[in-house]
Amino acid sequence: MSIALVILAAGKGTRMQSDLPKVLHKIGGAPMLHHAMQAGIGLEPERIVVVAGHGADAVCAAAQDFDADCAIALQTEQKGTAHAVAQAEGALADFDGDVLVLYGDTPFISRDTLEAMAVARKDHDIVVLGFEAADPGRYGRLVMQGDTLDRIVEFKDATDKERAITLCNSGVLIADRATLFGLIARVGNDNAAGEYYLPDVVALARADGLKATAVACDEAETLGVNSRAELAAAEAAFQARARATLIEDGVTMQAPETVFLSLDTAIGRDTEIEPNVVFGPGVTVESGARIRAFSHLEGAHVSRGAVVGPYARLRPGAELAEDVHVGNFVEVKNSYLAEGAKANHLTYLGDADIGAATNIGAGTITCNYDGVFKHRTTIGARAFIGSNTMLVAPVTLGDETLTASGSVITKDVPDGALALARARQETKPGHARKLFDLLKLKKKKLMEAKK
Amino acid sequence: MSIALVILAAGKGTRMQSDLPKVLHKIGGAPMLHHAMQAGIGLEPERIVVVAGHGADAVCAAAQDFDADCAIALQTEQKGTAHAVAQAEGALADFDGDVLVLYGDTPFISRDTLEAMAVARKDHDIVVLGFEAADPGRYGRLVMQGDTLDRIVEFKDATDKERAITLCNSGVLIADRATLFGLIARVGNDNAAGEYYLPDVVALARADGLKATAVACDEAETLGVNSRAELAAAEAAFQARARATLIEDGVTMQAPETVFLSLDTAIGRDTEIEPNVVFGPGVTVESGARIRAFSHLEGAHVSRGAVVGPYARLRPGAELAEDVHVGNFVEVKNSYLAEGAKANHLTYLGDADIGAATNIGAGTITCNYDGVFKHRTTIGARAFIGSNTMLVAPVTLGDETLTASGSVITKDVPDGALALARARQETKPGHARKLFDLLKLKKKKLMEAKK
Amino acid sequence: MSIALVILAAGKGTRMQSDLPKVLHKIGGAPMLHHAMQAGIGLEPERIVVVAGHGADAVCAAAQDFDADCAIALQTEQKGTAHAVAQAEGALADFDGDVLVLYGDTPFISRDTLEAMAVARKDHDIVVLGFEAADPGRYGRLVMQGDTLDRIVEFKDATDKERAITLCNSGVLIADRATLFGLIARVGNDNAAGEYYLPDVVALARADGLKATAVACDEAETLGVNSRAELAAAEAAFQARARATLIEDGVTMQAPETVFLSLDTAIGRDTEIEPNVVFGPGVTVESGARIRAFSHLEGAHVSRGAVVGPYARLRPGAELAEDVHVGNFVEVKNSYLAEGAKANHLTYLGDADIGAATNIGAGTITCNYDGVFKHRTTIGARAFIGSNTMLVAPVTLGDETLTASGSVITKDVPDGALALARARQETKPGHARKLFDLLKLKKKKLMEAKK
Repeated sequence: MSIALVILAAGKGTRMQSDLPKVLHKIGGAPMLHHAMQAGIGLEPERIVVVAGHGADAVCAAAQDFDADCAIALQTEQKGTAHAVAQAEGALADFDGDVLVLYGDTPFISRDTLEAMAVARKDHDIVVLGFEAADPGRYGRLVMQGDTLDRIVEFKDATDKERAITLCNSGVLIADRATLFGLIARVGNDNAAGEYYLPDVVALARADGLKATAVACDEAETLGVNSRAELAAAEAAFQARARATLIEDGVTMQAPETVFLSLDTAIGRDTEIEPNVVFGPGVTVESGARIRAFSHLEGAHVSRGAVVGPYARLRPGAELAEDVHVGNFVEVKNSYLAEGAKANHLTYLGDADIGAATNIGAGTITCNYDGVFKHRTTIGARAFIGSNTMLVAPVTLGDETLTASGSVITKDVPDGALALARARQETKPGHARKLFDLLKLKKKKLMEAKK
Repeated sequence: MSIALVILAAGKGTRMQSDLPKVLHKIGGAPMLHHAMQAGIGLEPERIVVVAGHGADAVCAAAQDFDADCAIALQTEQKGTAHAVAQAEGALADFDGDVLVLYGDTPFISRDTLEAMAVARKDHDIVVLGFEAADPGRYGRLVMQGDTLDRIVEFKDATDKERAITLCNSGVLIADRATLFGLIARVGNDNAAGEYYLPDVVALARADGLKATAVACDEAETLGVNSRAELAAAEAAFQARARATLIEDGVTMQAPETVFLSLDTAIGRDTEIEPNVVFGPGVTVESGARIRAFSHLEGAHVSRGAVVGPYARLRPGAELAEDVHVGNFVEVKNSYLAEGAKANHLTYLGDADIGAATNIGAGTITCNYDGVFKHRTTIGARAFIGSNTMLVAPVTLGDETLTASGSVITKDVPDGALALARARQETKPGHARKLFDLLKLKKKKLMEAKK
Repeated sequence: MSIALVILAAGKGTRMQSDLPKVLHKIGGAPMLHHAMQAGIGLEPERIVVVAGHGADAVCAAAQDFDADCAIALQTEQKGTAHAVAQAEGALADFDGDVLVLYGDTPFISRDTLEAMAVARKDHDIVVLGFEAADPGRYGRLVMQGDTLDRIVEFKDATDKERAITLCNSGVLIADRATLFGLIARVGNDNAAGEYYLPDVVALARADGLKATAVACDEAETLGVNSRAELAAAEAAFQARARATLIEDGVTMQAPETVFLSLDTAIGRDTEIEPNVVFGPGVTVESGARIRAFSHLEGAHVSRGAVVGPYARLRPGAELAEDVHVGNFVEVKNSYLAEGAKANHLTYLGDADIGAATNIGAGTITCNYDGVFKHRTTIGARAFIGSNTMLVAPVTLGDETLTASGSVITKDVPDGALALARARQETKPGHARKLFDLLKLKKKKLMEAKK
């Protein structure tokens, strides 16, 4: 059966105290919207429709950043969840199959849960996702009759017996497109808020003699985010789960609670991660690498046997081949370091290609920016870049080249050549002592003048 | 009604295992004494008297650092809390109004609680602060008769019925100056320790027919600090509360538990704070800034739209205007960066003024210290400081100036000028290869010699 | 009574999901094997025998790294704990005394507990270490008759009454060498796994009329590590205990939970440790030092009054004398800094000796590596090294020397001399502006071409 996802992402999220639309607040370095989309992707949907409202441009950009083909439906007025889903009808007019309704601010629903819904759908016209609530509070209750979902009752309309039910409504549901939009068209807004509520479709379906059921998931999966405190709690839940998964997969972390991961972080077995490491989006680390303390990685790839940090900063486009060492206070951006290359101290490598086994001396800087354009630095294999070498890009240094410490390299250096650009040392006997004496005298006079 | 604060801060704190007087141990970057003073400041007191004893000079300095006008009373012998308060009598001889007794090692009493005490004082001669203890243990108990505080009974003197009371004595109290010192003069020391206890004033007051009552606060507010383990717990409590307050105010923190705040940290709405950031004392951050991971700020101001870090070190006097970027391994001290200025890599800016939209290249250093004096560096707007430029202060560079990478700038540079100070590059074909061969040969010989 | 330790360390640790032998996984920077050895060292054993199997070479190297004299016995097949201990018999053939059996994957047994076992041994032939289990689960039970250990019963063979026992078997035991190996020789393997189980020696001993007893310890001491999740939990337990011990000893930590310690970390009283500090192996800090945030120390010594960090990286061989300051983004390796020396910004000191009260300017680098050899830099007292000085080792600078900012120092500098090596500044009026205009023009054309 073909599936289309409809993801509701129109809310403003007033309680977030933010100018950013709610679904764009991030967990694990990715907008909540991406988490919802990623869960749905497990069902291999043919179509994705994101219903945007507040901050629609930014929401649209984020959605298409995740999936360039996803459609956007606009909900210009906030008139309830059924109304929100109805906005997706146009985008799905030519679609034949099931529609799964998800929420952009409910980031933790698992693929397994959605697959269970898809399975249950085979025998039922409509499948709702419920959760067993530890404290059901004011959630809507799922009223079951055996395997059949009879109806969803709002807390305020529920009898005492119904309020005793602990299986609550998550809002997520799946049904055939035509069925779903047909039911939604009949949902009314005869309630205090004057809104159209999606759960009402269940009663309508049942009245039509359709078969409805519920699938239950862990309450943690349906955790919604409505305030920054809840966002922080959701982030903590994400991190705890992501760390546990890596540990199970054979990654060593001395202090997992100090390692921060992103939704897409991928790390191989027997990699060792020291305390206080931040993985921003887009990082892959192969097996057997070592990521030392206080390192920060974003959009980088680290190969087997490489050592990163402590205090290494890998920015997008950093590619470290096997056995590369990038160490203390070194920043790498949009650069490739070939096998066994080393840059261990106080270095900035931007827009550079570094050859195999090349050693980059302490304090080396690629001068890649002229104020308007960025330029590339290329260094061959087995080169030795002396400390504090400035590499004024565009510039190319060949294999087995050597630069003298403190040189500013502005011209290409052929294979095997030595390049130097520095003044000769002059030594002036006694001059330092004279200077120190002068300064001290000056200070003494100043101190006396102050009295 | 005028109010004077008397803050008891004479204790040594033997259990702290420290040479530092107890009240000077810090929570949230500020001595505990400051926390107590700050709580009392909410009542807009006319006078503050700090009663010092152990380490009186240091305590005095810290007290006057918070409020230059505060008076110090010395308690040279430790003879109990009533005796300690009595030492403040001289400093308040000419004061007409209420005296509120606080404790320098009880940092968490809230302004709201003190205000409630001031309100209750209107109808009572003496008001004691109590707290509902989860485990009352050996605390003194407040014996109430309806709204009236009848007396404070020490645990060891209490009947079983009195021990069942859970409202305990915090030691904080407020009364009219003349009344309070009159009562204190009559407190005896007929007890095992031979000390004069402040709570005894309640019984004396009641015997005189005065009206006494109690105000209750949360137990967490009366948390005292007597050991380093308790100090660490108090610090954790302070941080948890400070983080929660910021989150409520609309600050985003991915991992609040890794962000450390000071008593005076102020951060605007929609500022984003990444993991592992330390805010030392004196930091203000405007709305919509971004503080990236592993940054450390002290005495700094960050404006709207600025990006700090990762790995940025802002020291006292760092002033970042709007949209300034200060990035990786960059230290800024006593310097102003105007709107849109950027210093993104491996840079030290000390005692500098940087103009708007100026770009500071990687590895730039202001050479502000000559071994005795510090000097200032001034750079105009839209300048481009090449990588690894040394700016030997005092020196001034105009608007739209440019320095060549690797230059040492010792003389002023007028608007629009280019300054360079570097040797020309020489390239010696084949020299590097020869050198490498020589070194390898030397190594080989050494290895052979070792065998 | 002489004691020999037999430490079982042959297991693979399949559940660790690792190529590293289980006992070499680290806690507090040291292999678990070292923790077990360290506990046993408290009894001043005459001999240590480590029974290795999986990854025997690496295990042997680690064991001898802790104690060069320890013997290794190989267990080539995994045939149970009794079989493992039996492998140590040869290494102890000439040993006369007690044998204590410990486990390389049980790192937390305390010296006190082992001493209690040694004491109990005086009156009994065999002493087993038990623990009171909160949840005894499938552990073997110690069946006591008064003070006598009657037998150890496996969970699967236990009666309901025996299963109700909460005193469980840790596997640790002590007995006379001849007795132990005599008993072990009689242990059978008539069980499902066909293995030889060490606990069986108790029943054999009792049948011989020998006296057996048990000593009980805290369950936390017998915590074994079988998976990476358990390793992470063990690390957390180690860190919590190590931090608490330091706090009790008078060290101040603002956020203890962010400070990571090693098994051998030693820190004096009244030292202040800011958040986010990592102590790798081999660090000693004297009283009254200050370790600021984001610092990373390994194999370093810090003296009284020294200030380290923020962002300081001390590597093995870093020796900081009293009142030394090593600050922001500074790395020190195999170097001695004499009293009052300062290196506060963006510096790399490797293989250097720095004299008293010498000031190392920002951006200074010791160029200690020529691609093959490492060389030493020596600087005298009260010297002033200008910012961005390159010190090309081997090189020696005398007392009260001064280097000009941006100089590359390749030749020795005598006492009191000034050394400089730099080009003069040229200033070209208007050139910068022309360059900027040209670049902007170029950009504009490119933009137009794109349209």
